[in-house]
Amino acid sequence: MKTKSQKLGIYNSFSLNEAKINGGFWNERMENNRKKTLPAILDQLEKTGRVEALKQNWKPGQPNRPHIFWDSDTAKVIEGCCYSLATNDDEKLEKKVAEIVDLFASAQQPDGYLNSYFTTIEPGKRWTNLRDNHELYCAGHVIEAAVAHFNIKEDTSFLDIACKYADYIESVFGRKRGQMRGYPGHQEIELALVRLYEATKKKRYLKLAQYFIEERGRKPNYFDKEAAKRGETPDTNNPHRVYEYTQAHLPVREQTKPVGHAVRAVYLYIGMTAVAIATDDKTLLNASRRLWKEMISRYIHISGGIGQTLRNEGFTTAYDLPDESAYLETCASISMALWGMKMLETELNSTYSDVIEQTLYNGILSGVSLDGTKFFYGNPLASYPGFNGNGTFISDDYNYRRNDWFECSCCPTNITRLIAQIPTFLYTANDSLIAVHQYADSEVNFTPNDIPVKIVQETDYPWDGKILISVLPEQTASFTVALRVPGWCKSATLKINGRKPKSAYNIIMGYIRIQRKWEKGDKITLTLSMPVERIEANPNARQNPDRIALKRGPVVYCLESADNGRGLNHIYLPLDPEFEVSESTSGSIKGIPVIKMKAYRKKTPAKNDPLYSPLGSWSYAKCSVTAIPY
Amino acid sequence: MKTKSQKLGIYNSFSLNEAKINGGFWNERMENNRKKTLPAILDQLEKTGRVEALKQNWKPGQPNRPHIFWDSDTAKVIEGCCYSLATNDDEKLEKKVAEIVDLFASAQQPDGYLNSYFTTIEPGKRWTNLRDNHELYCAGHVIEAAVAHFNIKEDTSFLDIACKYADYIESVFGRKRGQMRGYPGHQEIELALVRLYEATKKKRYLKLAQYFIEERGRKPNYFDKEAAKRGETPDTNNPHRVYEYTQAHLPVREQTKPVGHAVRAVYLYIGMTAVAIATDDKTLLNASRRLWKEMISRYIHISGGIGQTLRNEGFTTAYDLPDESAYLETCASISMALWGMKMLETELNSTYSDVIEQTLYNGILSGVSLDGTKFFYGNPLASYPGFNGNGTFISDDYNYRRNDWFECSCCPTNITRLIAQIPTFLYTANDSLIAVHQYADSEVNFTPNDIPVKIVQETDYPWDGKILISVLPEQTASFTVALRVPGWCKSATLKINGRKPKSAYNIIMGYIRIQRKWEKGDKITLTLSMPVERIEANPNARQNPDRIALKRGPVVYCLESADNGRGLNHIYLPLDPEFEVSESTSGSIKGIPVIKMKAYRKKTPAKNDPLYSPLGSWSYAKCSVTAIPY
Repeated sequence: MKTKSQKLGIYNSFSLNEAKINGGFWNERMENNRKKTLPAILDQLEKTGRVEALKQNWKPGQPNRPHIFWDSDTAKVIEGCCYSLATNDDEKLEKKVAEIVDLFASAQQPDGYLNSYFTTIEPGKRWTNLRDNHELYCAGHVIEAAVAHFNIKEDTSFLDIACKYADYIESVFGRKRGQMRGYPGHQEIELALVRLYEATKKKRYLKLAQYFIEERGRKPNYFDKEAAKRGETPDTNNPHRVYEYTQAHLPVREQTKPVGHAVRAVYLYIGMTAVAIATDDKTLLNASRRLWKEMISRYIHISGGIGQTLRNEGFTTAYDLPDESAYLETCASISMALWGMKMLETELNSTYSDVIEQTLYNGILSGVSLDGTKFFYGNPLASYPGFNGNGTFISDDYNYRRNDWFECSCCPTNITRLIAQIPTFLYTANDSLIAVHQYADSEVNFTPNDIPVKIVQETDYPWDGKILISVLPEQTASFTVALRVPGWCKSATLKINGRKPKSAYNIIMGYIRIQRKWEKGDKITLTLSMPVERIEANPNARQNPDRIALKRGPVVYCLESADNGRGLNHIYLPLDPEFEVSESTSGSIKGIPVIKMKAYRKKTPAKNDPLYSPLGSWSYAKCSVTAIPY
Repeated sequence: MKTKSQKLGIYNSFSLNEAKINGGFWNERMENNRKKTLPAILDQLEKTGRVEALKQNWKPGQPNRPHIFWDSDTAKVIEGCCYSLATNDDEKLEKKVAEIVDLFASAQQPDGYLNSYFTTIEPGKRWTNLRDNHELYCAGHVIEAAVAHFNIKEDTSFLDIACKYADYIESVFGRKRGQMRGYPGHQEIELALVRLYEATKKKRYLKLAQYFIEERGRKPNYFDKEAAKRGETPDTNNPHRVYEYTQAHLPVREQTKPVGHAVRAVYLYIGMTAVAIATDDKTLLNASRRLWKEMISRYIHISGGIGQTLRNEGFTTAYDLPDESAYLETCASISMALWGMKMLETELNSTYSDVIEQTLYNGILSGVSLDGTKFFYGNPLASYPGFNGNGTFISDDYNYRRNDWFECSCCPTNITRLIAQIPTFLYTANDSLIAVHQYADSEVNFTPNDIPVKIVQETDYPWDGKILISVLPEQTASFTVALRVPGWCKSATLKINGRKPKSAYNIIMGYIRIQRKWEKGDKITLTLSMPVERIEANPNARQNPDRIALKRGPVVYCLESADNGRGLNHIYLPLDPEFEVSESTSGSIKGIPVIKMKAYRKKTPAKNDPLYSPLGSWSYAKCSVTAIPY
């Protein structure tokens, strides 16, 4: 637990050394990530030439021509490896990380610059197209990886590389004479620089992050200026292709709704929040809060996914919530969880933790297959035949499915580093309070007023709503335990040491706050009632006026044709359905609760039945339906 | 009425000299087209440089750089002008046509080649990229315009140009030594060459059409060969980008379902049908029939529009019938009507004429505004906020709307030539039968066994189902009058000279056939019952399982927010709605029947109402709803 002096960052998050998953749902996902996903992705990094690219010896005619994104992929995987090493020793993995860090070292130029694409392929083009070329984005991921490496390994070898690169970047960009007044087309470095500042305490990194954030959206637009310098006509015909797309349409403090590319947007918002906290900047934090509220009130899908369309990989209009054409990139869901955690440092409010939960269980996890080796880039709410996730028509009988890898593989590399850091999403604390945001079989150590306390959660969440929390102070200690009552939960019961509290606890901003003198072995039992709920969308959402979503606890359920045959859209629930929740007895989801119900469906048409007919031409038959977690 | 010797083309269609609209619905549309649309489009041709381009004196740096499509736009408008001149004298228009024909003459190269783009901009690139460059497509439209000019004006000035160009094309393409084995990436010339053959009786044009049709889809693929010649890697990764997109994935006789770009596909099918008829090729006709059946059973929208998606401007999978994202290009609807007419030459079957009606009243007419000066390119079934028809995000409050013109303006130029030739869609005939396919205030002259007969229709169709047909032979004549009973009509009553026929007429393939000795002044009264119908889609169509379409007669109705406020998707009809049909009393649709009904709608949400809530959170209120013709 870091100690903060800022006024805005009143809660601290925990590192992987302090918070641990002990078992249950997330243990399985993390083990899977460690044993299957990470090795599969490391293998892809090698196979596709991403690691080799760092040797900077690619020659025309050879396969695996380096690409502008590649360093970010490699860096994200190293970051994931470091998180994994924090929870599980693995000599082989440690060696692999050391090897790749050495390659990053060898790829660094004398001046500090580090980008395998530009050094090898376009050496003269450094910083000539910040709008499209992802150099500062890649730099951000290298920095994040180095910070993770430093935090876990207590070794500065990678951090030194990152600092040297950041120092160089700081010399290039800024408002001083001779410096470039640019900022990244794809945000990421802003939040990374704040992390570098936290790791090194060097203020110049924070100031550089602040500069990138404050400079964005100033007029005349930097991307137009650099385009003109390249001899190109700025694409001013359609500002949405440039300004909104990169959130450079307005100074960040004036931005009031999410626009453009979703991942870029939220990486910016995380950076804004991080800078606001680190610099005690209330108005910048308010801008971030305004954007959060707008996002979750009008732009987020029920899965916690964001970025409604493939067209700009981002936002469209408020309340536009399509099913099939929903894009909802895995990276965007991940960014929402990371943003939520940053916001939770500033206030104890379940608006953040509810969304983190929503996206962790639905929008993020859907991005990786149960076996951990196949990935979604977009996570639509309904499968559609014919097209792949990039909108390319494959064949009539093609169904949208997970892939081993992508040419642009930001999502697989992002999800592996996200799952490896799950324990950091569970708790925040300060000197007098510990907040339990996410329920999971886990433990955390914290020290209110210098008294070491261990908190242990035992639960089968999210499949069961009962959570047993043991409070284990080394000596009697007075502090508050705050427990989130999820927004979806209509009935929560609390017992302390087996007894109902004498007076009912108020729920403040979504949290029950239990303030008392805790004795070693005090036990809190929280039971969240978890019936199957039918959820409908706000009528401002024009899609799906006649559909409901099935949810149980935080988990959105879905129908698959594997269980229910084809024609899922023609299944109709009765007005008062009876839901039967039982553990699946077979296949990859054995033991997981599934929802069964009686329903109706339209008769399956014969081959030559007409395409259009008067209402009533199709009869309905009773059927049994099984829903499984999305 | 042309006389045919072929075995397959057993019915003839009528020219604009033989069939005329006298009043009513189509008269208004044609007058509008003549007085508003044609002048507006001619003006755009001038303003945008399309006419100027034919002077072939564009220089770099000047505005209005010629484009590969442009000659086709100009040619289609000339074709439309000629049809208009066939029905209405107009000295000014005649002069304009002559001017532009002179420009086409001046643009023709000594060898016959005629393309303002390639001659001016890329003189060395002639025929180097048949896949993308639309040269043969433009040639086809020049030929069609010349044939129209010849048919109307009995003057060969434009026809000679077209023949010279076609002769040159015939020397370039074919299977002889030294010839190119290519075929167009965008079909059109096939059907145009058959028209040129019919106008000139020169077999070589028919043979060239036949060659283009038979060569398509042979392996190795020609487009790959020419790409290799250009030094490009053929795009074999995704065959749908090339082979299916251009219907070059298989020899045409082996094609069984519509694929790829919709307009290209149907122009090919029209060409196949025309060649099949002109060469008595039964297997080729069967291929065309198979494609028709597949199209109307699984691919056509309720508006008669085809080509489900913008992604390939064409077909996706069977039963994929989206509303908002439906593309349904105006040109594709037009092509369906033209194909249907060609098919009607081969059999008297309302499968063709029903679709022609469906697309004329819905998918085609939606492409032009009531005032005749604004156009849709795509014709989605529901408006969606934010994006324009090309999928480009404009702004939050942008709503899909008609435009004055497009960079690629095939649709406005196509719809003006289509509406100008409406009378040709009404009737077909042979020596012993005249078929009335479309009901409209109109007349036609035909000559069964050399006896001149005039048929006059009086009707307020499509707003009223009563049709009065006067049969006016110069002397008593024995022949059959066949009247289509539309597929949507559940009850048709027939009277001849005011009396019900003694025995009920059978309906054969959708037509009542009345065979008798006709006396001058015999009157047929056909009354088609036209209640409001609620139509539902085949359950194989996954979209809209809970929605109905409102139709009255052939006209699909829709709800607009102008009449009904926002939130159209949250309007619910009762199980047994009462529809009230009344004439609109105001605005641009004054006098046109609108449908009113009582319905329910969800309460309008407040600004901060949640995005998702348990079922039942939203109450319903009664409301009145007005539907107007789509």
